[in-house]
Amino acid sequence: MIDLRSDTCSRPTREMRTAMAEAEVGDDVYGGDPTVKALEARTAELLGKEDAVYMPTGTMTNQVAVRTHTEPGDVVLLDQAAHIYLLEGGGSSAFSGVLPRLLPGVRGIFTAKDVEPFLAPAHRFFPATVSGPLRLICLENTHNIGGGSIWPLVEIRNVAELAKSHGVTLHLDGARLWHATAATGIAEADYAASFDTVSVCFSKGLGAPVGSCLVGSRDLIARARRFKQQFGGGFRQAGIIAAGALHALEHHRPRLQETHDNARRFAEGLAALPQIEIDPANVETNIVRFRLVDIEAGDFVEEAYRRGVHMLPSGGDAVRVVFYLDIQAPQVDEALSIIEESLHALS
Amino acid sequence: MIDLRSDTCSRPTREMRTAMAEAEVGDDVYGGDPTVKALEARTAELLGKEDAVYMPTGTMTNQVAVRTHTEPGDVVLLDQAAHIYLLEGGGSSAFSGVLPRLLPGVRGIFTAKDVEPFLAPAHRFFPATVSGPLRLICLENTHNIGGGSIWPLVEIRNVAELAKSHGVTLHLDGARLWHATAATGIAEADYAASFDTVSVCFSKGLGAPVGSCLVGSRDLIARARRFKQQFGGGFRQAGIIAAGALHALEHHRPRLQETHDNARRFAEGLAALPQIEIDPANVETNIVRFRLVDIEAGDFVEEAYRRGVHMLPSGGDAVRVVFYLDIQAPQVDEALSIIEESLHALS
Amino acid sequence: MIDLRSDTCSRPTREMRTAMAEAEVGDDVYGGDPTVKALEARTAELLGKEDAVYMPTGTMTNQVAVRTHTEPGDVVLLDQAAHIYLLEGGGSSAFSGVLPRLLPGVRGIFTAKDVEPFLAPAHRFFPATVSGPLRLICLENTHNIGGGSIWPLVEIRNVAELAKSHGVTLHLDGARLWHATAATGIAEADYAASFDTVSVCFSKGLGAPVGSCLVGSRDLIARARRFKQQFGGGFRQAGIIAAGALHALEHHRPRLQETHDNARRFAEGLAALPQIEIDPANVETNIVRFRLVDIEAGDFVEEAYRRGVHMLPSGGDAVRVVFYLDIQAPQVDEALSIIEESLHALS
Amino acid sequence: MIDLRSDTCSRPTREMRTAMAEAEVGDDVYGGDPTVKALEARTAELLGKEDAVYMPTGTMTNQVAVRTHTEPGDVVLLDQAAHIYLLEGGGSSAFSGVLPRLLPGVRGIFTAKDVEPFLAPAHRFFPATVSGPLRLICLENTHNIGGGSIWPLVEIRNVAELAKSHGVTLHLDGARLWHATAATGIAEADYAASFDTVSVCFSKGLGAPVGSCLVGSRDLIARARRFKQQFGGGFRQAGIIAAGALHALEHHRPRLQETHDNARRFAEGLAALPQIEIDPANVETNIVRFRLVDIEAGDFVEEAYRRGVHMLPSGGDAVRVVFYLDIQAPQVDEALSIIEESLHALS
Repeated sequence: MIDLRSDTCSRPTREMRTAMAEAEVGDDVYGGDPTVKALEARTAELLGKEDAVYMPTGTMTNQVAVRTHTEPGDVVLLDQAAHIYLLEGGGSSAFSGVLPRLLPGVRGIFTAKDVEPFLAPAHRFFPATVSGPLRLICLENTHNIGGGSIWPLVEIRNVAELAKSHGVTLHLDGARLWHATAATGIAEADYAASFDTVSVCFSKGLGAPVGSCLVGSRDLIARARRFKQQFGGGFRQAGIIAAGALHALEHHRPRLQETHDNARRFAEGLAALPQIEIDPANVETNIVRFRLVDIEAGDFVEEAYRRGVHMLPSGGDAVRVVFYLDIQAPQVDEALSIIEESLHALS
Repeated sequence: MIDLRSDTCSRPTREMRTAMAEAEVGDDVYGGDPTVKALEARTAELLGKEDAVYMPTGTMTNQVAVRTHTEPGDVVLLDQAAHIYLLEGGGSSAFSGVLPRLLPGVRGIFTAKDVEPFLAPAHRFFPATVSGPLRLICLENTHNIGGGSIWPLVEIRNVAELAKSHGVTLHLDGARLWHATAATGIAEADYAASFDTVSVCFSKGLGAPVGSCLVGSRDLIARARRFKQQFGGGFRQAGIIAAGALHALEHHRPRLQETHDNARRFAEGLAALPQIEIDPANVETNIVRFRLVDIEAGDFVEEAYRRGVHMLPSGGDAVRVVFYLDIQAPQVDEALSIIEESLHALS
Repeated sequence: MIDLRSDTCSRPTREMRTAMAEAEVGDDVYGGDPTVKALEARTAELLGKEDAVYMPTGTMTNQVAVRTHTEPGDVVLLDQAAHIYLLEGGGSSAFSGVLPRLLPGVRGIFTAKDVEPFLAPAHRFFPATVSGPLRLICLENTHNIGGGSIWPLVEIRNVAELAKSHGVTLHLDGARLWHATAATGIAEADYAASFDTVSVCFSKGLGAPVGSCLVGSRDLIARARRFKQQFGGGFRQAGIIAAGALHALEHHRPRLQETHDNARRFAEGLAALPQIEIDPANVETNIVRFRLVDIEAGDFVEEAYRRGVHMLPSGGDAVRVVFYLDIQAPQVDEALSIIEESLHALS
Repeated sequence: MIDLRSDTCSRPTREMRTAMAEAEVGDDVYGGDPTVKALEARTAELLGKEDAVYMPTGTMTNQVAVRTHTEPGDVVLLDQAAHIYLLEGGGSSAFSGVLPRLLPGVRGIFTAKDVEPFLAPAHRFFPATVSGPLRLICLENTHNIGGGSIWPLVEIRNVAELAKSHGVTLHLDGARLWHATAATGIAEADYAASFDTVSVCFSKGLGAPVGSCLVGSRDLIARARRFKQQFGGGFRQAGIIAAGALHALEHHRPRLQETHDNARRFAEGLAALPQIEIDPANVETNIVRFRLVDIEAGDFVEEAYRRGVHMLPSGGDAVRVVFYLDIQAPQVDEALSIIEESLHALS
């Protein structure tokens, strides 16, 4: 089975497994796991921030970030298709009690101009208490539902400058920030410089089995550690899995361009098929989104699954495919063949 | 000052004050206020529901309804400009922990077709746990930010039928449902029949000083009473103000068409002014929304305020005006004159 | 029926009703109700604080205070029988998300010594994140479940000094603070001086139909106004009922000693009955709690109810009785007779 | 350093590391990790329940259990020193919004008689809405703060029978249930039979690096999986660490009596020291709690730490020590020597 559902399906390599088996560990709740500490230090350094905290999942790092920056009833501004909004179990409302206000991003990218109306002060005739105060703006780079799209650095800076001038905090969901860096050559730290906190994930394209980090100032991360524990993220000898993440930073992070090449190769293959609508120019990193002509996405992915390619339908006629290091060029070509056969069978 | 900011600015009449002063009262927390009970019974009867519960505000009736139907992390579907979403202090997230998903209503009115995609079951390949379950759909009739727009009964029924066939609950924010009935002749109970709960307000167009009711089945209202107390709505000798609401139902509810006529008269007057954009055909009830040409709404309402008309700017070039029984035809004409002068002064 | 269940059962007098009927009103959400403003100003003045905000209930003022001072996961320290803990629908957990830690008060009164262990810093070996930070201490004066007991001013000051030296905030549930003042002659402002916020109630012993105020600094009350709206407390022409509260401050507040005398007269009457355990010395204000010997409280209150006295059983063999201005000496004596007959009937 | 702070400080053995390095893995969020599934199946089988769900921490399994059984405002009854109440960051209030009511357990063990008053129905005169409904009772076996104390099976059954007859749900915090079984020979499943859900932990005495399971009926665990994801517990290739837990079940669970013997050996050694108060008969499992005579616990643990024994002070003159497989008899004896020297140095 060629598994293209998500880069979260990546599996640890033999070398990564060895690194984990050899990891020095301690009790992370007591601050005593040296491998966790090494991972946090290395991640903070890469992102150019004072401190980092390691947690079991990307959802937890994002939710802890929202919790750290807000109190219930505050407004959080994000793209209408943000992972934090749509794919985290409603946690930002359930646990942080914040109200999402939505921006009409294009492939997940919005502009400072989109943000402006939300920063305008209410007129003195309007009672300020009837709506919550805007406290936080979240960006996502690369953008998952946007198809792995990359935020232009200049637009990030425009949004950040505007937000800061109004005292509004900024968080970056950077689960796949590594991919933006791999594609553009702009350092992660240069992206991160505009944000109060950034979450980054090790278990997606980087291929580690478990875990994410939240980075930021020493004070913010100290506050985030409180909420990590409250969310149930205070794991113990987490050095075992942190060792996998450290290994991924060292050995897999430099190789992300391979997956981008494979995604592009796949997209170009699809573009040649008449039943598929796709613009390969939109495939900037490791995610490929495409539409089917006159075929239900559900039928299509079932047919392809039976033939050995696993993909996710994402409503109506849309399909999502994600590449990662386990998938190499031969699998790309085989997947394209199977997709062609599947389309033929369904026509 | 001609106060056109909101129908919530309506003041009790002499007769209503007398009714309140004479009201028989008891302790409502102990279920012992006869006037509250009479108001609840009369409201339930008018709405065609088994039971009703009286609360201090429309925000509380809506928030208690959301709380009654959901648990934290559930998804609530509503119009992008719903009062529950934008004008209740973020309470649905802060206190009920629900995640709002938004529909692109036109003047606040959406369709069953808009709702359909949210009811489609996820494909088996997609892990259901990553997004919350859709539990509740909220409609608003008439729609405040939509400009007092009226939901077509047939569209309400389409949405309700679809929702019910998927086990999704329906709440109507009917703060101004009285106006829909006054304008269309369709009984409140006929509108309410499609919903599990309906909130109605006495302190807006009806002119009572304080309070709203939530109506529904006996079981739902029993559950709502628990949350009324938890929200701090367990007031004591509330019969004093309930008497004003009962008076309003009897004496003001039949007169709402007057305010609609005044709103239309005002809209038509505005339509004659070149600096104002408005389609009087959109003025279906007591709310008038219009836009200014090349004038900031903030400047305009300040200028008119100095001259004796109080209106609310609602962002950019938009202004909202609301009519109620205290405002009669002469004030309408005077307000139009002052507006014309204000526009002249600003040109 | 002689209703001794609660002073919340007090009813507005003719004069109070007239004051309400004549009240000048406006829309309180827009900050435009002059009677509400007058009540807030008068209450702030009496309590010696900068500002006050009027809300529909004592529960709401307490819950808004907790919300104003804390964020979810914070620890709130209070007496094990505090109204905020036991009699507000679990609101402090449900809406403010705070964790209650309990003090073993005697009749609701605890000491600085009881508080001390909660303020000791954790040892450096203990990970601070595993328990929430202590943020708020709540006192209740007079104490409802404690039987209307009065906090000694010196003990309040001891607790406050200790709390402040550790940066911990203090709230007073002063729903019946008026009674402490009436009994001791210590001004409300002298009690209030030790606290960041104080809630006071108009619809209990003072006899107004509806409402409470929260008082504190300008900044804290501005923040509280946000949460008042979020809780659904933003009522409109609330001046109608605020007028009743203003009348109560002027005309009923000076008469509270009458109810204390009646409570004492009642307690002394009870003390003469062999089936009743009570120490009249514990009756400091308007609440009387007593125990029955070999009789179930449920049976007793049902029997007395049939004969014309309404009391509340409070678990097992305990009964609570509360006095207020509607109950005068003749009713006290009649109630005692009926109780004696009831006990006789049950023996 | 002999680390006696907590059994959470246990480290994976060479064999366990090998098992983890060889583990077959998949994406657990997609339900595709075979090792996680094997661990869940084995744990459910051991506990005699239909299903189990693996999560990163014991705190998360407990918090998800509370969330699964309740809604905000519900009352949860537990021992005054329960881990869920005191040592989980206030999560049950912050995230589930439940109100804790406390029982006066002796070493963490309460009785059905203690529970009874909380199950008595309120009298009809008392408005039920002013306090939240009792929904859940939590027990903890063995009890951490109680000193590793074991619940008698008969008392568990008494409490459970009473709770069930009133429709109240039961959860067992069984983080150290393995120890109760090791000490008494009563199977985990026999303990678990009285409960709707049970949490068990692999990273304490069992010595696995990370993780806990929640077990219960198929329906409850399906519901718990939703909240696991919402809490941020949806880790990916968790099979790596699940393999450690499976290894611990097979190889370490049978050896827990060793740690009990060491705890007892240590307690008896302490009992011979005049500056220490301890009753070795209270040491039922792997936790030892003792008091110091005329010495501050903080000073004592610092002194011993300098000399090579790491212990936790737990307020005032109390110290907690926990044994686990990494600590063998020679370390016990060495720790006793160091403690004796430390006491001597402090006298």
